[in-house]
Order: sequence, then C-alpha cells, then structure tokens
Amino acid sequence: MDILHLKPLAEQLFADIGALSFDGVGITRDSYGAGESAAADYLCGFAEQHGLRVHRDKAANLVFTLPDENDSTPAAWVGSHMDSVPQGGNFDGLAGIVAGLLCQIARRSQGAGEAVPLRVIAFRGEESAWFGKAYMGSSAALGKLTTDDLTLKHRHSGQTLAACMAASGADIDAIAAQQSWFDRDRAVAYLELHIEQGPVMVARKLPLAVVPGIRGNVRHNHITCIGEPGHSGAVPRWLRKDAMFAVADLIARLDEHWKVLLERGSDLVVTTGMVSTDAVEHSISRIPGKVDFSFEARSKSMDTLEGFYQLLRTECKAISRDRGVRFEFDRRIESAPATMDAGLSRLLRDACANADLPVEMVPSGAGHDASLFANAGVPTAMLFVRNEHGSHNPDEAMDLDDFMLGTKVLYQALQDIGRGKIHDR
Amino acid sequence: MDILHLKPLAEQLFADIGALSFDGVGITRDSYGAGESAAADYLCGFAEQHGLRVHRDKAANLVFTLPDENDSTPAAWVGSHMDSVPQGGNFDGLAGIVAGLLCQIARRSQGAGEAVPLRVIAFRGEESAWFGKAYMGSSAALGKLTTDDLTLKHRHSGQTLAACMAASGADIDAIAAQQSWFDRDRAVAYLELHIEQGPVMVARKLPLAVVPGIRGNVRHNHITCIGEPGHSGAVPRWLRKDAMFAVADLIARLDEHWKVLLERGSDLVVTTGMVSTDAVEHSISRIPGKVDFSFEARSKSMDTLEGFYQLLRTECKAISRDRGVRFEFDRRIESAPATMDAGLSRLLRDACANADLPVEMVPSGAGHDASLFANAGVPTAMLFVRNEHGSHNPDEAMDLDDFMLGTKVLYQALQDIGRGKIHDR
Repeated sequence: MDILHLKPLAEQLFADIGALSFDGVGITRDSYGAGESAAADYLCGFAEQHGLRVHRDKAANLVFTLPDENDSTPAAWVGSHMDSVPQGGNFDGLAGIVAGLLCQIARRSQGAGEAVPLRVIAFRGEESAWFGKAYMGSSAALGKLTTDDLTLKHRHSGQTLAACMAASGADIDAIAAQQSWFDRDRAVAYLELHIEQGPVMVARKLPLAVVPGIRGNVRHNHITCIGEPGHSGAVPRWLRKDAMFAVADLIARLDEHWKVLLERGSDLVVTTGMVSTDAVEHSISRIPGKVDFSFEARSKSMDTLEGFYQLLRTECKAISRDRGVRFEFDRRIESAPATMDAGLSRLLRDACANADLPVEMVPSGAGHDASLFANAGVPTAMLFVRNEHGSHNPDEAMDLDDFMLGTKVLYQALQDIGRGKIHDR
Repeated sequence: MDILHLKPLAEQLFADIGALSFDGVGITRDSYGAGESAAADYLCGFAEQHGLRVHRDKAANLVFTLPDENDSTPAAWVGSHMDSVPQGGNFDGLAGIVAGLLCQIARRSQGAGEAVPLRVIAFRGEESAWFGKAYMGSSAALGKLTTDDLTLKHRHSGQTLAACMAASGADIDAIAAQQSWFDRDRAVAYLELHIEQGPVMVARKLPLAVVPGIRGNVRHNHITCIGEPGHSGAVPRWLRKDAMFAVADLIARLDEHWKVLLERGSDLVVTTGMVSTDAVEHSISRIPGKVDFSFEARSKSMDTLEGFYQLLRTECKAISRDRGVRFEFDRRIESAPATMDAGLSRLLRDACANADLPVEMVPSGAGHDASLFANAGVPTAMLFVRNEHGSHNPDEAMDLDDFMLGTKVLYQALQDIGRGKIHDR
C-alpha cells in the first residue's frame, strides 16, 4: 500500500484531537494537565482500534508497538509531544505522533521486511510554557528530570510539577531517583517529524527539510527588577528608581548586543516573552517599584549562549548602578544544542530525493525532544514539514499534503533502517 | 483655644479610618467603592458627633458646615479627597479633610469673628488608579465630568464609573447633564492642605510649604503595541515583530528625550506605570505579539506637555516602521496645569511667618482637586505638609506635629479671610 492513502486517517486524528483541545481561541493541551490527558486518552483509543499496543511509561508518556514485535529487540523510535502552549496550534508536536502512528499502521499492513522494529513514543510535557521547563516527559524517560525540576510550579494553579505528573499517572519516586527506563543501547534510531516553527521553508518553497542541528538555550523564568515605587508626578528624574525604565533600558541594551553579535556571524535569538509591572499595585500614576520578566537566548553554539548570558549579567549590574535598582534571578535553566546523526539524516535526504522532492537542510531554532536523544548518544534525525505563520499561536497552518509527503519520507527512511543503509554515516 | 490642642482628635481620625481601610499591606480606599464609602460613613458619624452638619452632594461628595452658618452666604472652602490608590498610604487626601474638620471644630468653639463662613468638602474619586481618570468627584461638582468619562471602567470589576457612582449614591442624570452645583461666585476661596508626595521638603527640612502651582498632565491609560507572536527559537531577528522589544525601545527613546528636555530647563516627569505582555497567552518561549502600557507626562507647562506628547507619537511612528509593529491609542486624557492665587498664598505665607516657620514655596508635581478650582476661577491656594517616602505606597509617613502646624497655619489663614487681608493680592 502507498502510505499516502492514509490521508483520511490523518485528517480524522487532527480534527478530533483539535476539537478536544480547542479553547475558544486556539489549542490548549496543558503539560501534565487536562488538555494533554484528553489527547492521550484519545490516542490510546485510536491505537487500540487500529490494532496497536499501548503502554504508559513511568512518566505517563505513551509507547505504541506493533502486536507482533518483541519489546526487547533493538528498535527504531519515532516520537514527538502531545502538549501545546496556551492558545497554541494543533500541529506543533501532534504532527510527529500522527506521522509515527501512520507508519505503524502502514508497517502492519505491509510488513517490516528487513527493517528493524518500529516504536512510537508520544511524550508529555515538552512545552516550557506551563512549568518554565521543557522536555519534562522525555527528560524523565532518560533519567534527567531532577528533584529541583519536580518542585517547579504551574503558571496558573501553582501546583508543583510532581503533583501534576502524579495526577497524570506518573511514578514520581522512579523519576526522582533519576533512573533511565529508556534503553539507549537498544535504540537504533530516534526520528522526529515536526512542523517548522519559523518562516524559512515557506519563504524558500520547501515542503520538507532535513534538520542538521537544534539550537540550545539558556533561560530565567523569573527575573525581578526592584526599584522604588513613588508618585508619578512628584519624584524628579534624578531621584527615581523606576523598575520599568530600568527593564526597558536592559532590553534595549540586549537588543544592541544581539545586533552586533549577528553582524559578527553568531547564531542567536533573544526573547523576553513575559514582562509585567506588578498587577496588584501598578497604576498610571505610580512609578513602578517592581517588574517581573523572563529571559531566553538560543543558539547553535554553547559559547555564544554563555557569552550572551554574561552580557545579561553585566548589563544588569551596570543598570543597577545607573538607576538605583537591583535584579533578582531565579534558577538558570539551560538546554544544550544538539547535532543530528549524519547517517540517519542521509536516509531522510535519500527518501526525499526518491520522492522527487528538493533535498534541503534547515536548522531548528526551536528545541525538540530529539535534542535529548541526540545528546544521550542515540542516533537521531529530524524532518521538518513546511508550516505557515510560525507556531505557538492559533494561526499555524500545515498543508495536509505536505504532511503526508513527510510521513512518506519518514516511512521510507524507517524501512531503510536495518537494510544496512544507516551504516554509511 | 489653641488648635494644636486638637491633636488627639486628629490622631483618632487617622487611626480609626486607617484601620477601616487597611488591606493587609497598605491602605485601600477605592474611588466610588467600598473603601471610600467606609471612610465617608465614618466621617459623617464623626462630624455629627462634633456638632457639624453633613450634606451629600449629587456626586456623593460630603459637605460639612457649621450649624449656625447660612448655606447661601459666600464662604471659604477647605477640601481634599477620601480615596486612595490600591495599597497606598493613609494621609494622601485624608490629611486635608481632617485639617478642615479640625478648623471647623476650632471655629465652633472660638467663633468666626469677622471671618467668612467655612465649609469643608470631602471629595470622592480623586485618584486615577481606579478608573484611569482623576478628580471625578470635584469634576462632577463643577459640571465637568462628561458622559464619556462616565463610561470608563473599573480596573478590577470592569463596572462603569456611572454604575459605581450610582451605587455610592450619586445622581448620574445631574452629572451627565454637566450642571455645576458648586457656586463659584459664592466661593471666596478654596484651600487644600496635602502631604507633599515627593522628596523635596524632607531633603530641605521644611515642615510646611506653600504651593505656587500644580503640574498638569497628559495621559493614555491604554496604549497597545501590536506585533506578531511567534516561536522564540525559530524566528530570526530580521523577521521579528516583537511587541515587547518595540515598547522597550519606545521607553528608552522617551527617556533620552526627557533627559535632553531637563537639560534644557523644561519641567517634566514621564512614567509608564503599567506595562504588560498578554497574561493569557504570554510564555517564556513565545515572541510577544501584544503589549499593553500606560503613558503619563506631567509638567507645569502645557507647551512642554504638548511637545512631549508629539515626541511620543513621532517615536511610535518611527518604531512602527523600524520594527513592523503598530500602536493603538485609547482616548487622550489631560489635566491643565494650575497657578495658585497670589493673595491667598500670601495669607498662608504670613501665617507660616507668624508661627515662626520658614516660608518656602514648593511646586506640586502631583495633581490635586485644587487645580480644578483654580482653573474654574475660584481663588485657590495649597499648603504642603512634609512627608517621608513619597505617597501612593504604604510607607508614606507624615509627622503628626507637622500636620498640626499645618492645620494651625490653615486655620490662621481662614480666620484672616474676610478681614480684608485677602484683597492685597
């Protein structure tokens, strides 16, 4: 069978799970929360209906296997995540899971031939929007979620990550013990299909692209700038300790440094996604005494990240002196950049060429569960599908025909693993 | 009697009303809300207990008169406001009312002599923190609250000003008709005692100061910067439309202009008291697509205000071009600067000199109900009392002995009005 014929199944999955997760504006599948669990329950039902076995691991991630495959045989893995940001889109994460399930359904009807067994893993908790930390489900599976991480609090409810994971069925003791239950040695490959989250492929008219590497990041979820509140009319400029003017000054300085680093050829993006004066006490006629903000820098280079982070700290010190404020930092969180496996990436490129598609490499600015597997020593590759309007917003738009081409290329690469082709890396 | 002997009464008033308004952190007497009404009820009870008559005007402001004075005789008025900002201090506004009531109590025991009758008015709704507009009670009394103003919404409940005023006992039809029920022709003077809200008098060791003029302001309660949301890792700098970087750039540019204008000798303060990314959708990994902020500039000079406002609009246009964002402005709100009456101010200065106090002029950076009376043609003067830590915060601190000196000076000036001394202005 031609896997392209499974398009109606893909349509159904996206439509049904999208409807489950619609929040009135966009898609909300909260990490280790109700939205994500609803998607997980739906996927379990769907898989069983199509003759797949489902197993929940100790972090409540879902592992799908074909009924006739032995759990202990080395296998190729396909994975992505079920959760979304608040008011996000339907394809970020879900597309990779649907692609994996379609490959399993095709494999079931067509047989594996010489190919290695195929597992699909649907992660929970990839998005940092909810607890200020990304890759929670995949980190736990690799024994890399720490007890510090487990104390992180949900952005709305204030519940700890541990409590929310437990409520979703995770085994907190196993996670806290940092045991890895993902057997790296028996993972022949980890492959992830994902929508591109930037504008490059639309601009370059590429339906698919192979990802050579994934940016790492360094972050603070909460930096607080503390100045001195005061009456907006009565304190002259030279006596002010305006926390908002200080933070604006900081952002403007970081923007300047960023511009200079780009001109020197560095790879870097910088974002302050959350900035706010204190909603309890702020008013139009009050000099802000306190501003909370988040900080994130991403780069392919750990050196660039470290250098920019030092600039952040230096500028905060300079502004503290200039403006009579101080900055308080929460825990620094970082994710290492990752390089994809050359041999596996070549399988994906060959599959693109076989399907008469342009063969292009587009690096990933966004992080993915794939980076953890790559950095854990599992041969890892990623395939991007073209997507309009970016992601993390309700307007993301992937053409289903592009998606099916991606699934076909992924399937072809999976069939080729085990035929010896992977060894030419 | 020496009015200084009324200090225990002042202590009691401040303590009782402070306790009524304590919110756990500071003082909250919300304009046309529960906190302000509780203070009003207490003041009514206090006044009746001390033989004063109380009348609620059509805007629910309280007017206190001595029992033997004729309502239609030309009179001198003493006023200030009952409300506070959220988590503010106890003296901002309330001090002026307490001073007025002590003067009436002293007048009652001592008699008026040649002095003109004395009325005290306790305004509601002076603080802009609640509805984004200041001087609501005094504006209404002068027929200057518009139907547009009445549609302004409460910062928390979203209820209209009209609904909150009506719930406090105001006559909305009379207010909407913009009838003035304050008879300017029969107002010989309007005097207001108020704490200084800036750091000047503490720095210069002045217990009291006479105010030569009050800064005006120009404001927007809500400006929205609209960019384009996106994934923080996947959109390169040159394709970003980051609303937060745009607003930071704007604030940094305004700060530069402000610095230059001060160096040229202009009188100006600039504040963005409320700034926030969209709490519903913001996250650490999302480029902010929308930032809301407030803008306020204050100056003694309407020309400076107008010039700076044009700079704001020009910089917004420049940033829109540079960064691919746009700015949406709500209604511009302004208050004219006000000059105090020279003759009345001289009475206050003479009274300071008689009390062996330094005679100093300190302009008001903050706005006051007094500015409306001055601009309506009523001879108006203001007396500042020294106060530490500014106002609009829980740490404001006025020494009760300074306050009693201020009350004594106010009382002396009131006794002198009608003795012909006012005519030497």
